[in-house]
Amino acid sequence: VVAAAAKAANFWIDRGGFRANVISMVKVGHVHFIWEGSNVDGLYRIFEENKHRFFENTESITKNMRARGGGVMSLELKDKTDLEPGYYQVEARFETCDSMGANFINSCLESFAQTLKDLAAEHVSELGDAPLQVVMSILSNFTPECLVRAEVSCKISEIEEGSGIGNLEFAEKFCRAIRIASVEPYRAVTHNKGIMNGIDSVIIATGNDFRATEACAHAYAAKDGKYTSLTHASVVGDEFHFWIELPLSIGTVGGITNLHPMVRFAHELLGYPSANELMQITAVAGLAQNFSAVRSLITSGIQKGHMKMHLLNILNQLEATDAEKEEIVAHFKDKVVSHSAAVEAFMRVRGVTAVGSDKSN
Amino acid sequence: VVAAAAKAANFWIDRGGFRANVISMVKVGHVHFIWEGSNVDGLYRIFEENKHRFFENTESITKNMRARGGGVMSLELKDKTDLEPGYYQVEARFETCDSMGANFINSCLESFAQTLKDLAAEHVSELGDAPLQVVMSILSNFTPECLVRAEVSCKISEIEEGSGIGNLEFAEKFCRAIRIASVEPYRAVTHNKGIMNGIDSVIIATGNDFRATEACAHAYAAKDGKYTSLTHASVVGDEFHFWIELPLSIGTVGGITNLHPMVRFAHELLGYPSANELMQITAVAGLAQNFSAVRSLITSGIQKGHMKMHLLNILNQLEATDAEKEEIVAHFKDKVVSHSAAVEAFMRVRGVTAVGSDKSN
Repeated sequence: VVAAAAKAANFWIDRGGFRANVISMVKVGHVHFIWEGSNVDGLYRIFEENKHRFFENTESITKNMRARGGGVMSLELKDKTDLEPGYYQVEARFETCDSMGANFINSCLESFAQTLKDLAAEHVSELGDAPLQVVMSILSNFTPECLVRAEVSCKISEIEEGSGIGNLEFAEKFCRAIRIASVEPYRAVTHNKGIMNGIDSVIIATGNDFRATEACAHAYAAKDGKYTSLTHASVVGDEFHFWIELPLSIGTVGGITNLHPMVRFAHELLGYPSANELMQITAVAGLAQNFSAVRSLITSGIQKGHMKMHLLNILNQLEATDAEKEEIVAHFKDKVVSHSAAVEAFMRVRGVTAVGSDKSN
Repeated sequence: VVAAAAKAANFWIDRGGFRANVISMVKVGHVHFIWEGSNVDGLYRIFEENKHRFFENTESITKNMRARGGGVMSLELKDKTDLEPGYYQVEARFETCDSMGANFINSCLESFAQTLKDLAAEHVSELGDAPLQVVMSILSNFTPECLVRAEVSCKISEIEEGSGIGNLEFAEKFCRAIRIASVEPYRAVTHNKGIMNGIDSVIIATGNDFRATEACAHAYAAKDGKYTSLTHASVVGDEFHFWIELPLSIGTVGGITNLHPMVRFAHELLGYPSANELMQITAVAGLAQNFSAVRSLITSGIQKGHMKMHLLNILNQLEATDAEKEEIVAHFKDKVVSHSAAVEAFMRVRGVTAVGSDKSN
């Protein structure tokens, strides 16, 4: 993963580098509730007329966030009764500045739920005898509006990527591989998995929540009804374009960002980015990772690099010395690596007849 | 995450425990290729008549796997020209026993690609002058046939979960929360993210690839065109049922399973499970995690537990002593935790007027 990212960075640094921009940073959460009454207009009117109370009742929670320019951006009552009998939501949109904001959002939502219950109790006569049941109050990890884009481009004549394939053939084959990932979910899943290899590395290093990032990215890939690629490529005139657009809800303050020494170091190394900047860095890591993976796949194949690493894993497991490793790696330069072949080579080099492991991959 | 899993385990141990079974362990990979010729029947005939060569040419790679009962289970030529002009696949299905099998599968696929290219070269006259281009050869991380199911059930009268809500009300509200996660993608993403909190913990501890597991699980959640819940619940007669079904492609040999000391320890702790057993353990961890999350959400709310942890994070960051922590935790027993309130309480307890951090969540 590190080698692939570094290779892509090295390739693009001479070809204009990576560019990124944040499209929007809105986050979202819901009070999910059930109300099976018939006076729906009344429910909406009560909600709208008392909306200020939802804001007022969260003032102590939102005070610091508002001072930094964030807070609760909007509140909306949503009728979801087509999905489930009596199902409504209070949908809240949030701006959480440099924090991921999960605790902030959930605290606000639990307050909204209490306000909603209070309003229902105060308006029993209008809402009829149907009880209002709050099922749960929780942020959504699906944040399609918290969106970042990263891209690279260069003249096709500048590609010269060195694997013996022509520039135009490389560009066209690359676009074909991306189109296959767009139309075939079996490929798209693996394709996006490779993107997440890069993205999760940054997410984990900076103390963010990779399960949230993963869930959001893959749901975004499936948002139009068919699971598809998160990256896109095209040849336009004499230029090759490659880009990614995905939602990333992450933070650079709060959580464990200031607690874990390795996380602190990662933020220092990145120059203490804002959340907006970290979204861009993370998207670039995903794009770089995908570039290297697709480049390997359409030229030498993915196993050349993988099996080199696999061989070293096996040799480390066998506790080979540096000199033994060097000799065995040279031996496999033009041969297919398998576990049994690696063990045989090790035994021959060391001059033994049995080793401690019979595990295989 | 650990507390939630332990709570669920504690709840279910007295109510029949968790049951799990593996439905199937088939994995899949593809040689993706482009051929824009017109003699499609000829292509299929050449493939079928020479299928044995794909198997023969991978014999040295598959030897060890076959000895363990696995190998290449089937090979099929697939016409995907409705998705992309000239797009075909050689789709291979694999049984990789106790290994995740990524290296094994990719090595086989690269061999299949070479055999395919050889066949195309030998049959130029039948295939016309359209060249056959192998775009890439790669396993799929989407393994809907590598499937495990885990479940719990008990009599509704046995629920007695202790939060003051009645047994039947709990069962019905729980099912309602699961139905909401089934029909509303904004909720489903967060719901499944919580499941993955449990699953990834086992995946990472046992040296498996969490990006592969994540990509597959979320794509599976979206497989029918709308992103939905991975868990399901129902009340049938006087019984409450709760279950998960998801694909998990994981291994207990190969990769880093025998290299990393913490991974070795995890396998020892679990009693050296087979891949089949580890699939069951992992699915149970996901189901347990989800049970605790939904249980919290529909009773006390998620923030009660989260904010307790958040408070301790803040106090650790402020380097509070054990005695200070105890006093401050007691102070917040009946109050809402916020970063500023926690810092204020700390300053009052220690008797200082400024602290080293102005970060907030």
